[in-house]
Amino acid sequence: MKIIEKGTLTLVRGIKASGIHCGLKTGKKDLALIFSESPATAAGVYTRNKIVAAPVLVTKENLSGYRAQAIIINSGIANSATGKKGIEDARRMASVTANALNIPPEYVIVASTGRIGNFLPMEKISSGISLAVNSLSEKGGDSAAEAILTTDTFSKTIAVQLDISGLTVTLAGMAKGAGMIRPDMATMLAFLVTDASFDVITLRSMLSNAVEKTFNRITVDGDTSTNDMVIIMANTLSGIPSIMQGSSEMFKFVEALEYVCHELALMIVRDGEGATKQVNIRVIGAHTQKEAARIAFRIAESPLVKTSIYGRSCNWGRVIAAVGMGGVPIDPEKIDINYGPYQVVQNGMSLGQERENEAADYLRSKQINIIVNLNLGKEESSVWTTDLSPEYIHINADYIT
Amino acid sequence: MKIIEKGTLTLVRGIKASGIHCGLKTGKKDLALIFSESPATAAGVYTRNKIVAAPVLVTKENLSGYRAQAIIINSGIANSATGKKGIEDARRMASVTANALNIPPEYVIVASTGRIGNFLPMEKISSGISLAVNSLSEKGGDSAAEAILTTDTFSKTIAVQLDISGLTVTLAGMAKGAGMIRPDMATMLAFLVTDASFDVITLRSMLSNAVEKTFNRITVDGDTSTNDMVIIMANTLSGIPSIMQGSSEMFKFVEALEYVCHELALMIVRDGEGATKQVNIRVIGAHTQKEAARIAFRIAESPLVKTSIYGRSCNWGRVIAAVGMGGVPIDPEKIDINYGPYQVVQNGMSLGQERENEAADYLRSKQINIIVNLNLGKEESSVWTTDLSPEYIHINADYIT
Repeated sequence: MKIIEKGTLTLVRGIKASGIHCGLKTGKKDLALIFSESPATAAGVYTRNKIVAAPVLVTKENLSGYRAQAIIINSGIANSATGKKGIEDARRMASVTANALNIPPEYVIVASTGRIGNFLPMEKISSGISLAVNSLSEKGGDSAAEAILTTDTFSKTIAVQLDISGLTVTLAGMAKGAGMIRPDMATMLAFLVTDASFDVITLRSMLSNAVEKTFNRITVDGDTSTNDMVIIMANTLSGIPSIMQGSSEMFKFVEALEYVCHELALMIVRDGEGATKQVNIRVIGAHTQKEAARIAFRIAESPLVKTSIYGRSCNWGRVIAAVGMGGVPIDPEKIDINYGPYQVVQNGMSLGQERENEAADYLRSKQINIIVNLNLGKEESSVWTTDLSPEYIHINADYIT
Repeated sequence: MKIIEKGTLTLVRGIKASGIHCGLKTGKKDLALIFSESPATAAGVYTRNKIVAAPVLVTKENLSGYRAQAIIINSGIANSATGKKGIEDARRMASVTANALNIPPEYVIVASTGRIGNFLPMEKISSGISLAVNSLSEKGGDSAAEAILTTDTFSKTIAVQLDISGLTVTLAGMAKGAGMIRPDMATMLAFLVTDASFDVITLRSMLSNAVEKTFNRITVDGDTSTNDMVIIMANTLSGIPSIMQGSSEMFKFVEALEYVCHELALMIVRDGEGATKQVNIRVIGAHTQKEAARIAFRIAESPLVKTSIYGRSCNWGRVIAAVGMGGVPIDPEKIDINYGPYQVVQNGMSLGQERENEAADYLRSKQINIIVNLNLGKEESSVWTTDLSPEYIHINADYIT
């Protein structure tokens, strides 16, 4: 598996892209277009928030035929909490794009990210779409990745190439999101393209599984945007035969897909505003994976745990209190806790001050692993998060002076 | 109803108290004792955390007979995550207190608050208990209230006197807690005493209802201590006849009880470290109270909402996104949002920039009300919380340098 970090989307056969400025943001690219020369099989995973933004509704509608050929994404305005006019605007984004590309409107995926509650300025969007279509290029991957950013501090792209049946298959992805820590702009978007070929059932189940293990395992503050969306398009242009469900080729591709999603997810965590550390919370020895995940999220979202990691304090009392609040049956006297290689709690009790000092020292690292063993069963789950720093507040407070 | 704010506990007939220094904290009172001249009917409400501290376990055990005559409380060490030895230590706190007071050990309620994971220094505790018993006085209410504090910045006490059947009944309470924002010391404790008389069933149901409406409606960061406890003792010494369930006297007392619990709960919110504002989130127009409460808590615990209030930004997009994450069926197009008197959202959409500016101006106040109307039904629920300031992080990070 060959890994490529730049110019990635357009490495996929038949994929062109562009990223341009249409006037939603000041002096920055704010409209991205991805286009596949031939119609692709496509699948999506969407926000679980009950407030669903207009572009998500329109994309779900358009993807009911499981075919897509273009993705149009604006940044700066979320087109969320915008009622019927919002829906009309999102549909118009699709139809203007479709007309310019000469494809059916239901082949267009629409995504938006930015401030909630404002309408899209449709004139700017329409002329922007013309410019984006005219700018489509086989070198446009990086521009597209840049145009979907909001308060992100870096572009998030990755591609892998793998050999299947003697031919090269490319899978590439771009994402935006700087943790779910930023309200209006907190949206997590990811767009994946590949030149492999799948039936839609296989593609959908691969995508859901990969998202569940990666994008759904990161948290910065527990808030979920109304605009979240992960999309994959498979356009068949690598020339390999359709990969069958359960085949060894499929498992090879699944591995690549999970790798790409995992890397993009970690980039989002690393870009979490105010984050000084990347934190992996791993709960092992659980009865079920679901119970392990519930406890891992409870720990990962505890402001007390997060601030103690920022402050390099081995405050395992905060961890164990979070374990007790996971809403899952546990045996307090069986719990072991490790900070990286340093075990600080055995059978629910401290292993002493010296260990805690070693663990506190370990908290100086940039990459922190906290492992909680419930010692009840054999299942486990991992969650990635960040510490919580004063910078987080400064960024999110949006002073109005 | 006469309201008294100082020296409160010992205003109740037959109640003596003391607060002394026994050596758990440096130069501060750390052991409190409350004693009733005659055995009282007693009831308690405890932490819902599955990790339950030793003193809570022992108090539950002792209160199974619904009678109590003394409450012994230490601050500085939580006696939590301390295994079998922790239980023995808590039992010993009860028996040493009982011996010194010449009452049965099961008449003693034990509470602790402070750092999780350390054992109590039992010699200090034992000699401290002797001193506390010798210091018991009819003027000891304020000392006791002071001795249960950890990082609180002020004592929390209140009493009310009401006329029932021509006699004066006093209900007094003291509490500690500075929001659930402080991990090791985050415990919320409240002790209420009255000289009224109730059967245990009535006393328990009144207490649970009052706690549900007050202490269980405050949140600072969603973390729950392993040591939380609210206790009430009713010692009958006012001379009034036992108040019957459902009587008009009971409703009069219930009103006083809810007032006392509400005031103590709000003192805890006001003392939340780093808090610059007190925030009331009120969700109305829900199908059920429970659904209203779930959404209210989701809003109150959203770091994004809390930081925007700190930053005086009318960021209703963060509020509506939290509404969508409450796990409750809603209709996005029916939601109205008010910041105090300023309605900013109608039918899920913005009422315009001018309103948002007015609301931002309103956020300069110290006391913020946010009202979300789901427009689905007639039930509602209120939650009290604070904003989230950089000071919160500084306090909780516990720098180890």
